[in-house]
Amino acid sequence: MKVAIMGYGNLGRGIECAVRQNDDMELVAVFTRRDPETVKVLSGVPVYHADRLLEKKDEIDVLILCGGSATDLPKQTAEYAKYFNVIDSFDTHAKIPEHFANVDRAANEGGKIAMISVGWDPGMFSLNRLYANAILRDGSDYTFWGKGVSQGHSDAIRRIPGVKNAKQYTIPVESALEAVRNCENPELTTRQKHTRECFVVAEEGADKAWIENEIKTMPNYFADYDTTVHFITEEELQRDHAGIPHGGFVLRTGKTGMNGEHNHVIEYSLKLDSNPEFTACVLAAYARAAYRMNKEGMKGCKTVFDVAPAYLSPLTAEEMRSKLL
Amino acid sequence: MKVAIMGYGNLGRGIECAVRQNDDMELVAVFTRRDPETVKVLSGVPVYHADRLLEKKDEIDVLILCGGSATDLPKQTAEYAKYFNVIDSFDTHAKIPEHFANVDRAANEGGKIAMISVGWDPGMFSLNRLYANAILRDGSDYTFWGKGVSQGHSDAIRRIPGVKNAKQYTIPVESALEAVRNCENPELTTRQKHTRECFVVAEEGADKAWIENEIKTMPNYFADYDTTVHFITEEELQRDHAGIPHGGFVLRTGKTGMNGEHNHVIEYSLKLDSNPEFTACVLAAYARAAYRMNKEGMKGCKTVFDVAPAYLSPLTAEEMRSKLL
Repeated sequence: MKVAIMGYGNLGRGIECAVRQNDDMELVAVFTRRDPETVKVLSGVPVYHADRLLEKKDEIDVLILCGGSATDLPKQTAEYAKYFNVIDSFDTHAKIPEHFANVDRAANEGGKIAMISVGWDPGMFSLNRLYANAILRDGSDYTFWGKGVSQGHSDAIRRIPGVKNAKQYTIPVESALEAVRNCENPELTTRQKHTRECFVVAEEGADKAWIENEIKTMPNYFADYDTTVHFITEEELQRDHAGIPHGGFVLRTGKTGMNGEHNHVIEYSLKLDSNPEFTACVLAAYARAAYRMNKEGMKGCKTVFDVAPAYLSPLTAEEMRSKLL
Repeated sequence: MKVAIMGYGNLGRGIECAVRQNDDMELVAVFTRRDPETVKVLSGVPVYHADRLLEKKDEIDVLILCGGSATDLPKQTAEYAKYFNVIDSFDTHAKIPEHFANVDRAANEGGKIAMISVGWDPGMFSLNRLYANAILRDGSDYTFWGKGVSQGHSDAIRRIPGVKNAKQYTIPVESALEAVRNCENPELTTRQKHTRECFVVAEEGADKAWIENEIKTMPNYFADYDTTVHFITEEELQRDHAGIPHGGFVLRTGKTGMNGEHNHVIEYSLKLDSNPEFTACVLAAYARAAYRMNKEGMKGCKTVFDVAPAYLSPLTAEEMRSKLL
């Protein structure tokens, strides 16, 4: 199957790596809204301007959309779903119903599959919430994120005057996780679930105490959390905090028996050195599914909930049953 | 949807409890090969002899088969799949291909869905192996079981002369689990993955040293493991070891990046107070899926790999997208 990438940032580069790990996939092109001459890709495939996408329509089985959820994907996914099987990682939870409706209309019109909100959350975490809820009907759900870098929170710090650079880690509170695992069904406040740790490079002469206070009292982002701020040098930031790790935990605890006498814990966790590269691997697997489902005549907008797991694997049904079941 | 149970042991009782937690399901009957007069069910539904199953054909949407994999299911699933949507928990891994072929023929003939090998392993663990393999293409798989009661190993101990009763726990080796989580890619022998702990009630005057040696040197069951044997009284066994807990861990570690420079860990784990009751909850969810898939015109033998997750949930597609995605 022939895969193309739209948008070449961290996620696009991740897709380039992921495709190389899948023998049944070939990357045929990268599309960008920048000047293609300025975009250096890792794999050496051709880079075209986004305007030329429709020219290449017949050479592409699945188009993987690597733009952002704020402004790119709300337009792009519905637009391109008319012409291509597409995958996106749209992650603005509150706007998923609206995005689904727009994309579904376009994909049905084009006779294509459009897979939205693919990745790990939404994505693998969502799947685990669904499976666990379908199994343990009487129970409680918990999702913890981290330890990992939150791009949004890092950006928020960088917007403070006097801040030159910053990186923010979201960290789950270990004692809260343990209480959940012990089936204590805790009701957890925002503060009890996660802490936030910030590594900040201040501009020369900046008032660090003022910056620290600005961070810790920032509404929505930090005010509801126990936040730690460390001032470090740019060199230290580049040396010790260059990565984009992330991960987290999805748990459901529940009761069974005639009188709810038995407790059960279902836990799914991810520990990722590279958030975009892992997300890209999930997108690549769902690209395979989209291609196959469309070949079987299916069309419209789909989420991870609509995809039978077998479509994701390069193995035959017989191999899956003998090796994985 | 109207559900019936075939076979009333621990798993059948678990189904009875699970159905009560699902508002869209109703248990209509229990079938048994014993004298129905002697079978007391928890819920008060009618109990019939297995011979009368076909009489009740039109009152049953899904038949949940709660027999054993050794002799019951290889016959029953294919036989009943001609007349009913059926679910089984067939778990003899080596014989799944043969079982699948037989059941698929029957279910296609009858125009029914037959869902085989449903539970947690095979079942949820298999699903997690598949998802993780589809995502991390360059990696290693690990499955650990326990801490939990192995019925087969407990039975093996009870067959030793001089043993009155016994319970065996399979326990994952914590240091092996940690090595996997740390992406050390260990190659683990049988002995390095699990230990076995046995609680044995000896008959009066029995030679305990001889029994202990018989256990520890038993081929296949214990000889390849570090095994601990504790002699206790029948009262202690009943008091401290009456439960049927189980669980385990499915991990896949893998590398991404142009040069495999980033490590990732996907981990799924279960901690179950009651193995049969949890298994029953999984069967109930897949009973819902079988009923819906058959209503949409699908037929034949299916495994968990063939079922789109959405079929398992009582929520509508819109609810799933807004609450779980």
